[in-house]
Amino acid sequence: MDQIPQKPRFALVGSGALGCYYGGRLVEHGHEVHFLMRSDYEHVRQHGMIVQSHAGDFEIPPERLNVYQKSSDMPQCDVVLVTLKTTANRYYRELIAPLLHENTVILTLQNGLGNEQRLADLFGEDRIIGGLAFVCINRTAPGRILHTEYGLIKIGEYKRPVSPRLRRICEIFNASKVPCQMLENLAAGRWEKLVWNVPFNGLGAALQLATDRIVNNPQGVELVRNIMHEIVAIARAEGVELPEDVIEQNIRKTQTMGAYRSSMQIDQEMGRPIELESIIAAPLATAHRHRISAPYLLMLYQLLCIVAPNQP
Amino acid sequence: MDQIPQKPRFALVGSGALGCYYGGRLVEHGHEVHFLMRSDYEHVRQHGMIVQSHAGDFEIPPERLNVYQKSSDMPQCDVVLVTLKTTANRYYRELIAPLLHENTVILTLQNGLGNEQRLADLFGEDRIIGGLAFVCINRTAPGRILHTEYGLIKIGEYKRPVSPRLRRICEIFNASKVPCQMLENLAAGRWEKLVWNVPFNGLGAALQLATDRIVNNPQGVELVRNIMHEIVAIARAEGVELPEDVIEQNIRKTQTMGAYRSSMQIDQEMGRPIELESIIAAPLATAHRHRISAPYLLMLYQLLCIVAPNQP
Repeated sequence: MDQIPQKPRFALVGSGALGCYYGGRLVEHGHEVHFLMRSDYEHVRQHGMIVQSHAGDFEIPPERLNVYQKSSDMPQCDVVLVTLKTTANRYYRELIAPLLHENTVILTLQNGLGNEQRLADLFGEDRIIGGLAFVCINRTAPGRILHTEYGLIKIGEYKRPVSPRLRRICEIFNASKVPCQMLENLAAGRWEKLVWNVPFNGLGAALQLATDRIVNNPQGVELVRNIMHEIVAIARAEGVELPEDVIEQNIRKTQTMGAYRSSMQIDQEMGRPIELESIIAAPLATAHRHRISAPYLLMLYQLLCIVAPNQP
Repeated sequence: MDQIPQKPRFALVGSGALGCYYGGRLVEHGHEVHFLMRSDYEHVRQHGMIVQSHAGDFEIPPERLNVYQKSSDMPQCDVVLVTLKTTANRYYRELIAPLLHENTVILTLQNGLGNEQRLADLFGEDRIIGGLAFVCINRTAPGRILHTEYGLIKIGEYKRPVSPRLRRICEIFNASKVPCQMLENLAAGRWEKLVWNVPFNGLGAALQLATDRIVNNPQGVELVRNIMHEIVAIARAEGVELPEDVIEQNIRKTQTMGAYRSSMQIDQEMGRPIELESIIAAPLATAHRHRISAPYLLMLYQLLCIVAPNQP
């Protein structure tokens, strides 16, 4: 199953801001995409979607959109893009199983650790591709997406080298105004992204503060650095050696980002479940498994448990 | 200067809730007290003070109160009670110096570490007595105090053994409906109080959460325990061996307290300066001086610097 059709049929599981944006780009460029949609279903079915993007606005009228409320109503697809919040991962089986034929590839663009493994346990390791989305994006109203910055995705085979199917998916994205790169080592990519996600999602949600309040404060920078050092050390124990300047680069980048509200901060503010498990708890569990002391990460986890109890 | 007069003249520097309550009890029981007052001066001068207390309500009419706006208008006193927020400690000299005669005793009932030393540096070590107030008290309106729980104060000579003047002050408080105990070792008392104050004031202010949200959460209890263990270790390095059960006792006590909002949480909520220096930074500096690793305390300090920048 190293190959996919030249013109694969896509399913999109989790049509939030991220899913609508990337799925919408594929539709815009002539691909067949089937969207599994919850809250915006009625609105999008009637009015389509409108995307305001720094990379170019676009609209998709309802007659060009295939939207569904249930996976069982959808056709089997060649590539299933998973853009669910990881807080919904317990629904993987019921949402994804109906979409699979023998050679369907599952590409998860979700945050944090553990998603590929969980998908592999359910559907077989060979199907799984992982991806990282570097993008600032928000749903501003039903069917309306605002894409303010970045947009790159990096994709890699799960525990396997770069493959023809990975190349083809990468080509399709790049031809659809979605900059895409291939990762030789998906795990390394995941850990590198966690270097940013752990402190800024975590502190943003715990303190209800945007990134600028954290990185424009000398003690805030020091705390971020301490947390990032722990992530680098945990990654190293996992066999992933991150670039030497990863910490300072991430801090500098964030210092120029303005008042960015992380997805976890927004989820917490809105009273929604937060991606505590995949972004914070899973790296912490990895530290424990390697008997690495990570007090800052532990305390961050505990703070989040206090402010956001009763997670699903 | 081991003695004070049988019927000393008191000055009260810092007439917030704490100062008004303890000073008011002394007036109620026939003592001469001179209150240095800021925000409530006009109101109290005209209407007196009203104290609603679980230990018995009382009122003091304006004609029985000596209130002042400036220390230079006040008489020299035998005992100066300091109940300022520690965020105002930089005004010690101008507020206290005019009140001193050769044998004046200064008793600070302020929170945290470093107050006695700073007073000693300014006015001489022999004058200084330290005290800990265990009390839940709030100013609900100008001249109105609500005292909901506890009330005990513990007092001890600074770097000296129990003295006749300490006994006399203790007698006066106990005879004025203020339960008072003497400390053989003031430093030990301070550290023991910090075991509670550091986690609950710190986390309360950082997360804007009352005590119940912290101690009724298993991860919250674990975090509190981790912070408390660090305080116990720092105290030990300072030569103070705290009782073995101090941590579990403090946690159990807090679990029965209900939704208590610490003073630091309230200060932060109101946009006032917080007692970061005396309650958090000073213990942390002590840890550094002894080269003790205290990551939880450090992170707590950094979190507070982020949420409450620009402290005076």
